[in-house]
Amino acid sequence: MTTHPAHSRVLTEAGTPVTRVALTNGETFDRYCTAGPGCDPEVGLPRLRSDWIAARGDTETYVGRAPQLLDDGRAAVRRGAATEAWRGETAAPRRAVPGARVTQLHYARRGEVTREMEYVAAREGCDVELVRSEVAAGRAIIPLNVNHPEAEPMVIGRRFLVKVNANIGNSAVTSSIAEEVDKLTWATTWGADTVMDLSTGDDIHTTREWIVRSSPVPIGTVPIYQALEKVGGEADRLTWEVYRDTVVEQCEQGVDYMTVHAGVLLRHVPLTARRVTGIVSRGGSIMAGWCLAHHEENFLFTRFDELCEILAGYDVSISLGDGLRPGSVADANDEAQLAELRTLAELTTRAWEHDVQVMVEGPGHVPLHLVEENVRLQQEWCHGAPFYTLGPLATDVAPGYDHITSAIGAAAIAMHGTAMLCYVTPKEHLGLPDRDDVKTGVITYKLAAHAADVAKGHPGARDWDDALSRARFEFRWHDQFALSLDPRTAQAFHDETLPAENAKTAHFCSMCGPKFCSMRISQDVRDRFGDLDPALDPALDPDLDPAAGMARMSAQFVELGGTVYVEAPTGSAAEEGAARVDG
Amino acid sequence: MTTHPAHSRVLTEAGTPVTRVALTNGETFDRYCTAGPGCDPEVGLPRLRSDWIAARGDTETYVGRAPQLLDDGRAAVRRGAATEAWRGETAAPRRAVPGARVTQLHYARRGEVTREMEYVAAREGCDVELVRSEVAAGRAIIPLNVNHPEAEPMVIGRRFLVKVNANIGNSAVTSSIAEEVDKLTWATTWGADTVMDLSTGDDIHTTREWIVRSSPVPIGTVPIYQALEKVGGEADRLTWEVYRDTVVEQCEQGVDYMTVHAGVLLRHVPLTARRVTGIVSRGGSIMAGWCLAHHEENFLFTRFDELCEILAGYDVSISLGDGLRPGSVADANDEAQLAELRTLAELTTRAWEHDVQVMVEGPGHVPLHLVEENVRLQQEWCHGAPFYTLGPLATDVAPGYDHITSAIGAAAIAMHGTAMLCYVTPKEHLGLPDRDDVKTGVITYKLAAHAADVAKGHPGARDWDDALSRARFEFRWHDQFALSLDPRTAQAFHDETLPAENAKTAHFCSMCGPKFCSMRISQDVRDRFGDLDPALDPALDPDLDPAAGMARMSAQFVELGGTVYVEAPTGSAAEEGAARVDG
Repeated sequence: MTTHPAHSRVLTEAGTPVTRVALTNGETFDRYCTAGPGCDPEVGLPRLRSDWIAARGDTETYVGRAPQLLDDGRAAVRRGAATEAWRGETAAPRRAVPGARVTQLHYARRGEVTREMEYVAAREGCDVELVRSEVAAGRAIIPLNVNHPEAEPMVIGRRFLVKVNANIGNSAVTSSIAEEVDKLTWATTWGADTVMDLSTGDDIHTTREWIVRSSPVPIGTVPIYQALEKVGGEADRLTWEVYRDTVVEQCEQGVDYMTVHAGVLLRHVPLTARRVTGIVSRGGSIMAGWCLAHHEENFLFTRFDELCEILAGYDVSISLGDGLRPGSVADANDEAQLAELRTLAELTTRAWEHDVQVMVEGPGHVPLHLVEENVRLQQEWCHGAPFYTLGPLATDVAPGYDHITSAIGAAAIAMHGTAMLCYVTPKEHLGLPDRDDVKTGVITYKLAAHAADVAKGHPGARDWDDALSRARFEFRWHDQFALSLDPRTAQAFHDETLPAENAKTAHFCSMCGPKFCSMRISQDVRDRFGDLDPALDPALDPDLDPAAGMARMSAQFVELGGTVYVEAPTGSAAEEGAARVDG
Repeated sequence: MTTHPAHSRVLTEAGTPVTRVALTNGETFDRYCTAGPGCDPEVGLPRLRSDWIAARGDTETYVGRAPQLLDDGRAAVRRGAATEAWRGETAAPRRAVPGARVTQLHYARRGEVTREMEYVAAREGCDVELVRSEVAAGRAIIPLNVNHPEAEPMVIGRRFLVKVNANIGNSAVTSSIAEEVDKLTWATTWGADTVMDLSTGDDIHTTREWIVRSSPVPIGTVPIYQALEKVGGEADRLTWEVYRDTVVEQCEQGVDYMTVHAGVLLRHVPLTARRVTGIVSRGGSIMAGWCLAHHEENFLFTRFDELCEILAGYDVSISLGDGLRPGSVADANDEAQLAELRTLAELTTRAWEHDVQVMVEGPGHVPLHLVEENVRLQQEWCHGAPFYTLGPLATDVAPGYDHITSAIGAAAIAMHGTAMLCYVTPKEHLGLPDRDDVKTGVITYKLAAHAADVAKGHPGARDWDDALSRARFEFRWHDQFALSLDPRTAQAFHDETLPAENAKTAHFCSMCGPKFCSMRISQDVRDRFGDLDPALDPALDPDLDPAAGMARMSAQFVELGGTVYVEAPTGSAAEEGAARVDG
């Protein structure tokens, strides 16, 4: 799915997708593409990686866990069925043969370059050895469950393009399966690199099946949400067994990464008591509740090695949840947050012992002056494991605009080394995002991520800015729109004042009108001065007397054609455009 | 004008306005208020400062420059009249008596504390000596023309709250006087601290009259725009005399600050020839055009001292325009920009010799890693004169979303010391902002400015965040809305999924539903742990063995009521709310 007639999804020689933008000057510009090949929702996506996985010979299919009505929640149990069963094919689940580890981390550590690494290197435009070595060091992950062969491989790590995750999912009071699948497609169309299904309402299992089968990007979940549903929503009734069973259920479906709130320890909970906003993570509060109710240590922590062994069999990555993240700028970087981060660092090392890929989640709400410290401590303590932050919001005062308050923090934290940004939509704190909010959230985060790529000097990142700015400067309005993150919105805003087609070739716009156009004036400057010798340029020579410099420039200036810059030639495109618009 | 029933404009004991937010728990929260006392557009605002100015005895009224039809442009000349003459009272213009200087800088340097300084100190909640000394040092300005007594004094400087300017104004292809006055009111309603009238179309003089008479905030302009209109839009026909006459016209009307592109020197112009986007400032390109056409130095530079003498007579502040600001991230911090900044530093000192207040304008488009350098160089070179930046945009790729790309840069640059931010609306690069764009732009910049205030540790800035976050944590939904930058939007987003009134007192929202609410869970945690002795808290004691710590906590925990955290008591507000919503 593309967003503009000038866009097409093209496979490069390496077989990786790009969005090719056709420009009016005959050039093309290729952008990273997350939209996938398009999908019949009744069938699901083609299984891109099936052969790659099978060819490695270290996995096998098996008779999976039998589906249960409770997987879809209490409403399904009452009704005797899920609302809308998945209608496409369901493959038998696959996992590692006994004794094998099938994670990209395992392969990378052994020095093996996988098809997935090659794919990722081609998408990123980097050497495959960079991918392998970063994955081997734990500084990057390629989150890909062997049961989600539909996904196009992508990498999350600070040496690569900053990625964006979009959260979707229903809750007890809202939304249908079709709506969630539509949000998935909409999110990847606009550039989401991964999508998390955070459903907590009805039909959790079935909703996820539709989502995974239709997703060209890795899918993340928070299994504790579904586990809690299975025990009637009562945190104290949660057990390791219910949780483990839910994890296996999701591994078999093809979830690519799972948020695990194993860092919420019993001794951390009292640290939140004096906060302005206590515990704001759902997973964090569930586990805190469980710890308090049982007065026992968090079972996700005590059973962490068992969990890792399960995940290693499917190559499911762990996203270490920050259950004690600050929910207000007042609580940022406090003892509760940092105590948990130390535990997450310990868990990172433990996961790596099982060859399980890990990223670490981060806040939340952080005032701008504390943003850098978040990345620095996480990178130091967690040995460079990828950081994955929610925003952070730089202020609490703008509900309804928290995509913006958080994009400010997100761009800053990504510039300092965060590898993936979890989007925040305008509905944050107020309700669940609808389709429009998903689009706004993804676009806002794509621009924040790209701003960080540019600030990091990521190779090639600024090419996109330069291509668009050149189009702008040369009055190629259609190219400016086509190169935009959201071409139709850009064009619609332009057309509000100047709808005529000729206004899109005219050398001015509605902001200044034809006579005032600064871009036109400075193009004239370029036409005159483009050939001047910079060695003679007095402004480049700090020792030169300004008067002497001016005389020198004057000489050159006369040489190049004398008294330039009078007014636009009559009959120029600008004047004609103006006449047509005025008339 | 207020934006919510819980808001009222209240005058403090010092006579300065605040927006008082009445909360449902009986508390109030006072916010900085820019909306003014409200205004009959046919009459204009009350003349708050008339007596203060007169009492100083250093100004006098005089017979001003005779109005000319050409002041309203060529269309007015053709028609024989402006479209809609100002219908309110017009006072005789006032200026300094011969030999006097009537600027706040002059008074401050003499050690005089003016009513304006007292007013500003009360609004900022700081000591008046801080205001006086910062103004005296040139590190802050109070832009207030003696002919704009309607304006409520405000201060621009890095030691004070970060301010936001909103640009309005028509162009040759769009908008009416009434629309522009409406945008002014709308902008100050949402928090604009100053407004610039950048009109370049018809009726420039009359539009400005309506705006100044109706504005409770300082009004800025770029006089070269009007001067250019007077010479038929042909830059080469501009003269110092036409410009000077235009400046006097605007001084007499009450314009509080004027952007002067005196730093665009002939020798700088060739530095832009190899840029991706040349010269993008209108004023910059006009003056570059003039310099080239005449092959003479910029008359704004050569006549700068004469200009200062005029402005000192009215206390009009200079905003030194950055005519060579980068128009793309590729051009940021380049030689053209920095060469002009050096000239602006020189002009700052020259203006100060005339006791004229100065701020310095900055870019534009700047990648995040170059943002800090912009402030640092400006502050060093310009001796701490206030920096006033347009954004900057952190990337070029998102036309239609440039309020966001620029808010990212704006928050960062303000954190590093920029004193005022010029807003950017979603229409940037595409068209002129309409009423909705003005609102979006102002709110986006208010949140960016506030994020910077918080990051700077500005005294009291975080109180607002904390008040809102406390309301959020305590499920005071109405208070959360009322404390928001945009209460109605926040409430509308909430009500999309949970419109019932009881959902605004329920202890959950549509994001998690009643069972899952993390805020509710952590309030339970607080209820239990709020009384725990922190000295016994093992998580606070790095030397304590976790097991021993847990045993200690356990003892306290049992003492405080035993096995807490089971489930919400039946019949609680949350459950009741859920029942009502579900039913």
